[in-house]
Amino acid sequence: MITINLVCVGNLKEKFWAEAQNEYIKRLAKFCKFNIIEVAEQNRTSSVPETIAREGKLILEKCKGCTFLFDLGGKNLSSENFASLIEKESQLSSTITFVIGGSYGVSEQVKARAKALISFGAQTLPHNLARIVALEQIYRAFNIIAGTSYHK
Amino acid sequence: MITINLVCVGNLKEKFWAEAQNEYIKRLAKFCKFNIIEVAEQNRTSSVPETIAREGKLILEKCKGCTFLFDLGGKNLSSENFASLIEKESQLSSTITFVIGGSYGVSEQVKARAKALISFGAQTLPHNLARIVALEQIYRAFNIIAGTSYHK
Repeated sequence: MITINLVCVGNLKEKFWAEAQNEYIKRLAKFCKFNIIEVAEQNRTSSVPETIAREGKLILEKCKGCTFLFDLGGKNLSSENFASLIEKESQLSSTITFVIGGSYGVSEQVKARAKALISFGAQTLPHNLARIVALEQIYRAFNIIAGTSYHK
Repeated sequence: MITINLVCVGNLKEKFWAEAQNEYIKRLAKFCKFNIIEVAEQNRTSSVPETIAREGKLILEKCKGCTFLFDLGGKNLSSENFASLIEKESQLSSTITFVIGGSYGVSEQVKARAKALISFGAQTLPHNLARIVALEQIYRAFNIIAGTSYHK
């Protein structure tokens, strides 16, 4: 069973986001070994580039296997193409890591570490909601690969 | 104060989606008279085209003022461009209606009624999560128009 890591900055403060996350974690257990890895949000009193650099270091330590970054500047894939990407990579690697940056974005080092940047479209999403969209897309991808009725 | 209606099919069954929705409704009250209008989800035992036609009729009854449809086949706008669209339309109309179709999509009549179709990118979202993304984008748009720190 493939391991999927979703690396995020900070935790979900609102209970409803945490519960939405738990629901998808539960559903994903059928398809993969799924881990949410939260790195510590850095002190907002430091400068923005410093915050990004510090968070970037913490993120890089958690990037195992084939790594993809969810980023507004990335390529926006259909759910079917995102599923194909997971299916293909899962044949090459036992672990796939997805990264969602913090409120200020991610360092160039994280971008360089990623095999590809993937976006969820042209609109800006807050990182808590982006996390839920990422969870749903990963869950949808496994359903597409398995051919279940979820994506029909 | 402008009236914004978000017309949706069915209600949010999971508590966490309902609570996310309530949070955005609360926040939106600062900027507009905001209404969620839920039309009844039609019996799934009828054929898909029949379900779409019935839901379409109910949706059309609720389309007041300038109407936009959120649809996978629509134009994917940046949050800034979406805000410009709301700002421009609010000068022409006292009510803007946004529509999110049901699980099966929407009728051609609803598409024809809409001034424009707007998508949230190439990926498929379930309609409950699409509703939350729509709420966040509408909230973000008003923050962009008002120049608050939310979108900075």
